Amino acid sequence: MSQGYYINILRVRSSGVLSRHRHSGPVRAFTLRGRWRYLEHDWIAAPGDYAFEPPGETHTLVFQDDVKELATLFHVTGGHTYVDPYGEALGYEDVFTKLEHAIRHYKAVGLGKDHVRRIVR
Amino acid sequence: MSQGYYINILRVRSSGVLSRHRHSGPVRAFTLRGRWRYLEHDWIAAPGDYAFEPPGETHTLVFQDDVKELATLFHVTGGHTYVDPYGEALGYEDVFTKLEHAIRHYKAVGLGKDHVRRIVR
Repeated sequence: MSQGYYINILRVRSSGVLSRHRHSGPVRAFTLRGRWRYLEHDWIAAPGDYAFEPPGETHTLVFQDDVKELATLFHVTGGHTYVDPYGEALGYEDVFTKLEHAIRHYKAVGLGKDHVRRIVR
Repeated sequence: MSQGYYINILRVRSSGVLSRHRHSGPVRAFTLRGRWRYLEHDWIAAPGDYAFEPPGETHTLVFQDDVKELATLFHVTGGHTYVDPYGEALGYEDVFTKLEHAIRHYKAVGLGKDHVRRIVR
């Protein structure tokens, strides 16, 4: 939290899209299971593949129909801003919004809001 | 650029405000000349004062009437998102938007767009 980064495993079990967003800090990604790609690039990430997303990059993540399960570990420094096709801000995520999501989830499944402290360093 | 940070000297010669914004990465500030404050805090920054802005902090910078010249060195990692009073995104800045501003300025004053390369590492 004090350095503004988070590490998460993005798990996806159906086709879909992670909306267009722009990163303010560097991101590292390690594909664990399944295949995914950027709408803006031809490259397809497969298990074992590593991707570096440079700051300032705007992209959209696509999870295709034939994927039964996708799991990718992301190390995200700084935040990302959701943007429209003209680069105008629509919203944002950072370690604090991610923690809010986690707290809501832990409360909903009965683990309580303090459970989140186990994953905060 | 590759790490998504910039260092600038914010120079202000009249009263004014730097709109409410939320940082995704840590920021360090060194006040060189003049006095300024955060709208959300009582503390006033004076020459020689150092401030650490933690990631996730939302604040507004205020430059008061009695200041003839303010100069503060900022080291800004990640980006900041301009937000409304409810935290909704209104816009953003990062090293790339700052470089765009600098290129426009250097072109306007006749130094040309490539002058910006002198300040990029």
